[in-house]
Amino acid sequence: MQHTTESAIDVSTLLTVRDAERVARTMLPKLALDYYRSGADAEITRRANRSAFRKWAIAYHVLVDVSRIDARVRVLGNELASPILVAPMAYQCLAHPEGERATARAAGKSETLYVTSTMATTSLEDVAREYDAASSGAGQRWFQLYVHRDRGLTRSLVERAEANGYGALMLTVDTPVLGRRLRDVRNAFKLPTGMFAANFLPAGDISKAGVDAQAAYTSGRHEPAFSWRDLAWLRSLTRMPLVLKGVVRGDDALRAVDAGASGVIVSNHGGRQLDGAVANLDALPGVVEAVASRGPSDFTVLMDGGIRWGTDVLKALALGAKAIFVGRPILWGLTVGGEAGAARVLEILRNELATAMALAGCPDVATITRDMVVRS
Amino acid sequence: MQHTTESAIDVSTLLTVRDAERVARTMLPKLALDYYRSGADAEITRRANRSAFRKWAIAYHVLVDVSRIDARVRVLGNELASPILVAPMAYQCLAHPEGERATARAAGKSETLYVTSTMATTSLEDVAREYDAASSGAGQRWFQLYVHRDRGLTRSLVERAEANGYGALMLTVDTPVLGRRLRDVRNAFKLPTGMFAANFLPAGDISKAGVDAQAAYTSGRHEPAFSWRDLAWLRSLTRMPLVLKGVVRGDDALRAVDAGASGVIVSNHGGRQLDGAVANLDALPGVVEAVASRGPSDFTVLMDGGIRWGTDVLKALALGAKAIFVGRPILWGLTVGGEAGAARVLEILRNELATAMALAGCPDVATITRDMVVRS
Amino acid sequence: MQHTTESAIDVSTLLTVRDAERVARTMLPKLALDYYRSGADAEITRRANRSAFRKWAIAYHVLVDVSRIDARVRVLGNELASPILVAPMAYQCLAHPEGERATARAAGKSETLYVTSTMATTSLEDVAREYDAASSGAGQRWFQLYVHRDRGLTRSLVERAEANGYGALMLTVDTPVLGRRLRDVRNAFKLPTGMFAANFLPAGDISKAGVDAQAAYTSGRHEPAFSWRDLAWLRSLTRMPLVLKGVVRGDDALRAVDAGASGVIVSNHGGRQLDGAVANLDALPGVVEAVASRGPSDFTVLMDGGIRWGTDVLKALALGAKAIFVGRPILWGLTVGGEAGAARVLEILRNELATAMALAGCPDVATITRDMVVRS
Amino acid sequence: MQHTTESAIDVSTLLTVRDAERVARTMLPKLALDYYRSGADAEITRRANRSAFRKWAIAYHVLVDVSRIDARVRVLGNELASPILVAPMAYQCLAHPEGERATARAAGKSETLYVTSTMATTSLEDVAREYDAASSGAGQRWFQLYVHRDRGLTRSLVERAEANGYGALMLTVDTPVLGRRLRDVRNAFKLPTGMFAANFLPAGDISKAGVDAQAAYTSGRHEPAFSWRDLAWLRSLTRMPLVLKGVVRGDDALRAVDAGASGVIVSNHGGRQLDGAVANLDALPGVVEAVASRGPSDFTVLMDGGIRWGTDVLKALALGAKAIFVGRPILWGLTVGGEAGAARVLEILRNELATAMALAGCPDVATITRDMVVRS
Repeated sequence: MQHTTESAIDVSTLLTVRDAERVARTMLPKLALDYYRSGADAEITRRANRSAFRKWAIAYHVLVDVSRIDARVRVLGNELASPILVAPMAYQCLAHPEGERATARAAGKSETLYVTSTMATTSLEDVAREYDAASSGAGQRWFQLYVHRDRGLTRSLVERAEANGYGALMLTVDTPVLGRRLRDVRNAFKLPTGMFAANFLPAGDISKAGVDAQAAYTSGRHEPAFSWRDLAWLRSLTRMPLVLKGVVRGDDALRAVDAGASGVIVSNHGGRQLDGAVANLDALPGVVEAVASRGPSDFTVLMDGGIRWGTDVLKALALGAKAIFVGRPILWGLTVGGEAGAARVLEILRNELATAMALAGCPDVATITRDMVVRS
Repeated sequence: MQHTTESAIDVSTLLTVRDAERVARTMLPKLALDYYRSGADAEITRRANRSAFRKWAIAYHVLVDVSRIDARVRVLGNELASPILVAPMAYQCLAHPEGERATARAAGKSETLYVTSTMATTSLEDVAREYDAASSGAGQRWFQLYVHRDRGLTRSLVERAEANGYGALMLTVDTPVLGRRLRDVRNAFKLPTGMFAANFLPAGDISKAGVDAQAAYTSGRHEPAFSWRDLAWLRSLTRMPLVLKGVVRGDDALRAVDAGASGVIVSNHGGRQLDGAVANLDALPGVVEAVASRGPSDFTVLMDGGIRWGTDVLKALALGAKAIFVGRPILWGLTVGGEAGAARVLEILRNELATAMALAGCPDVATITRDMVVRS
Repeated sequence: MQHTTESAIDVSTLLTVRDAERVARTMLPKLALDYYRSGADAEITRRANRSAFRKWAIAYHVLVDVSRIDARVRVLGNELASPILVAPMAYQCLAHPEGERATARAAGKSETLYVTSTMATTSLEDVAREYDAASSGAGQRWFQLYVHRDRGLTRSLVERAEANGYGALMLTVDTPVLGRRLRDVRNAFKLPTGMFAANFLPAGDISKAGVDAQAAYTSGRHEPAFSWRDLAWLRSLTRMPLVLKGVVRGDDALRAVDAGASGVIVSNHGGRQLDGAVANLDALPGVVEAVASRGPSDFTVLMDGGIRWGTDVLKALALGAKAIFVGRPILWGLTVGGEAGAARVLEILRNELATAMALAGCPDVATITRDMVVRS
Repeated sequence: MQHTTESAIDVSTLLTVRDAERVARTMLPKLALDYYRSGADAEITRRANRSAFRKWAIAYHVLVDVSRIDARVRVLGNELASPILVAPMAYQCLAHPEGERATARAAGKSETLYVTSTMATTSLEDVAREYDAASSGAGQRWFQLYVHRDRGLTRSLVERAEANGYGALMLTVDTPVLGRRLRDVRNAFKLPTGMFAANFLPAGDISKAGVDAQAAYTSGRHEPAFSWRDLAWLRSLTRMPLVLKGVVRGDDALRAVDAGASGVIVSNHGGRQLDGAVANLDALPGVVEAVASRGPSDFTVLMDGGIRWGTDVLKALALGAKAIFVGRPILWGLTVGGEAGAARVLEILRNELATAMALAGCPDVATITRDMVVRS
């Protein structure tokens, strides 16, 4: 698979996430573009994730001293420089030869939280190394986990993540079976020759074992029987805090609290799983209210999906998210300019958020209160 | 009328109902396509039946054991393997030479409830035979009835249905007069030479008697005077349970209960009768609430119209339908591949429903409760 | 001004009002088409009059004996065969050489209420004669009045109307000044040579006096000072019942009751006066409720504007209109086929209403109650 | 920068603001057109400012004596002939060589309130002179102020405004930092050679000092630290009444009351600052209610943004604005016909408002009460 990268793009010409997407769409092979952009089935939820932001308008304050904008947030007890975090994304080498290495370095340099995907085309060990080398030490990285039918494999992934200093385990809970993305089915999507789900490769003979591992993986990836009851087992494997990704209901969030999780990510997998699922921004307030009904706690509500502008971040925070994750925007940046492109997308969103906070009269995240947004 | 069927379609390449429709539209003669796709007048209700599904989003559960998806439902005291049932559809030989024979076999093999239309191009006796031969015995078939001005004819149809082992009588109540489908008027729609409304043919001389029967039928098809009062007469003709198709109001549903019916189908005849009628999914909750207000009972609320995806089924069930009927999707499948095409459409919808239930955390239909959907 | 009428249209091929409009648009000179179709300014209200009907769906009844559909209504104490009445429309000779003569005959033969416009291109005397000759005597005709600055002229019109047996006076109250129709301004609209506002012609020398009368008329047409206070004077001129056309508020309807009017027409002049005015169907319930708050009375609430289908009539009646007026549809019919075209449009709408009532389970207008429609 | 003005436009052929915009778009260089038309980022708020007017319909009165329409309003204790005021707009020489001189004369002759922008391409002294020469004395002019980092510069602007007889100080409070207009960034917008932000030019050597002043200005234009606390300082500089432009919240309006301001302008800077900010018409009622909650006062609520028709003015007044400002429409007029074009736009809007008031049955602004509009 050849990338059209003859003419290097000056990533500083990208002004918005849309710019990055527009350019990336012209560069990516159809197989990869379809894989990244698709939602499940009719893509109703993928679109709803975006349009949900249009339902809210910002009721900004004026005459507030905004000469210093402080976007720091605390997530799982750690301070992060910004509420804009990098979501786990599979198969990043489809976008750029350096794949996860590039995005990890971009996030590391930006001191942004980075989440390594189980389905990475770079091993979690390599990602950790790249991230740490790029970071001054202030950043953070988590590991995203799918529970596999093979409990030993699952355990091994958790142990490797902990051994490699990952700060938290993000368990994806919206994928008991795989959602159907029609374009991938029609493209007969599979990783191109020479690209592997690297976390499943045995050390040593990459070329052959990789293919077998991938086949084995595909058949066993999803464990539809895994339930709340089984969380205790997972908790027992590690001291890493556990965050559940894919929760959209208040009652499920409370079960997560009761199960000893440290937080939830309100997410519908970018609309890639259950088409017709509630949009994440629509689901957010219910989850936030349910958690708040238990009184003050350290339990953290995060969100992902549909963030394309700094004002989207502000809206999500006003509705109760502690921080948000971006996925596809990072992939567009990665496609366009590798590490520099991914870093540029992060920079764009951070700058936009800073401007949005200044214009909204919110010098820090504590001032982004619920009344900052109104139905539009 | 020639079908463009030189190149056989591999129905396994159809992934969605939309695929089947897309292909069918290229194959059907305009006369037939228009007959199937049309709604009445401005087709507002036909479109509203679809858009009503967009008003609801699924608030799915996570971390439920969905390793076994059980879509069984009980309808009129009988267990069915799936809540996806085959609606009565007229003149199926317009879609494919094998017409009702093909869809009946497809339904029979799938053990899906099949409803034979009064207006079939295959006699109810032949349909019964085909269905039973294909089914292992676990399936079910009902007979759909229009009340004709000629009470003797009506009685004869009921008696034939009962004699041929039909499990229930589905009386269409939304057609006191025929809705106007503009395309059919402009096409001067009538059955092509050699095709007949087979239930009105006398045994014996098909070629000539058929034409006469059809003309007689057309003039006498609708009995606008038939009312709640007359239901008792119809009940007296048979021991088959009676289901009323075309009810959209709670008060009418309660009259159906009082009249000794066993259920209602919330339906507006696919938007083919009263244009501007309330969309079926919009009408469903009111009907369900009215019936529930009488306390627990075996009275069954079903729905038809606008189902195109497995998630549509889940939404209808969450809003109180016990099961749903699909019509046009079966016709598209029949057009594309005869029995195999109709079976493929059923398979697509069943698979989609199974995936939707898994992703929604609903292992069986009892868990598809009202709170699974929210306004979007 | 030449009409493209070489090839006579068989009006029975028109199935819907839309058909008539489609054909008429190809036949009318731009000057006339623009005059008829335009709303004021941005035409928001003209469009809103149509889209308001889309906000309501019909919750139809089933199993009602609808073998006899009786659409009779009582308006101002008189029985009319149908609630579909012919609105006053200016300058009908722009549509067809026979103009008001043709529509009057069409309405007379149909025994439909016909309202002669002050701005007719045929004198009120001639219209009366044509209508009466065509009618068997069961129909009705009213006269629509603009109050002119010249009170003598106004009085003379009222006296002529009464002398010619008009059954009621319909005073247009939404035109204290003329709304701006941009197309007419750009077209520098005026009546073509040889066409006159016939009610202002002196008997005798038509050719010259007509031009003067028209100029005099134009400058004095609107009396912006005319107010509730002046209604008493108008009442004193005649024993004809008075109906106010253009009321959209409940409080104004009550003032009409207090002023001795016999009814109001909820109307915004087809969106030709105040652009941005509330849509008539949106305004209707408030007017109906206000009038009802005074207890039972003979005061009649009618409506005009935006009716294009029989189901629109049913919706308006369900929301409290006693009857409705159609304007532009008659003009399209008149354009296409003169008297026969206008009659065909009336026939289309009556047939559609009969079908709608049958399919809604409403055998007569008394059964078209408020609960027959729900928000959609 | 050359304007395409070979063929002079007869401004009387402009019938609507849209006409002016349509012509202006063909005449303006892209740099200028983009500068004027752009909103920030995705331009959601710019569009929302317009669409908010569509949410309201006018429930007009009939039979009111509207022979005299009196649109006079009192703003800051002064009577103005009309509630249609001229907003401050930067860099008007981009639209027409005579720039602010032309619009000031147009406003002066129309006796319309004119607000001089800090960012004018004509000095506030020259604008005052032009306005006063054109006005008979009945008009008014205000000065719009940005607080600059250089307090001395800010003070100097205030003192010059007061010395030149400006009647009020309009402080823009929604610009602590500059919103991003993507087209301007891509165009690398800057004033063309020979055009200056004239209020920052030292008297004397224009050619050179101008460039320096502009650069100095650009870097220091926005003072993000300026807050409610600092308002007292600004108040201490002048006896001119102070009006805050850019307030969208009730609580901020009350702080403005408490800070001794005389009024607020509900505004989001034409959607040029915080994209996603609440539409001004959506924000207006909350601001009006908050101010009213303090009881009767002279505190004035004004509005700007999105006004394109006379009925828009009526809607804004019904929702509580005392008067409204128009910006872009004046620029389109200026572009098309200089002073005559700007005057024509004012005339169009005034005539439309007079017609709207007549058709709404509102002879004066006191009768434009809250109940004149309903949600549509």
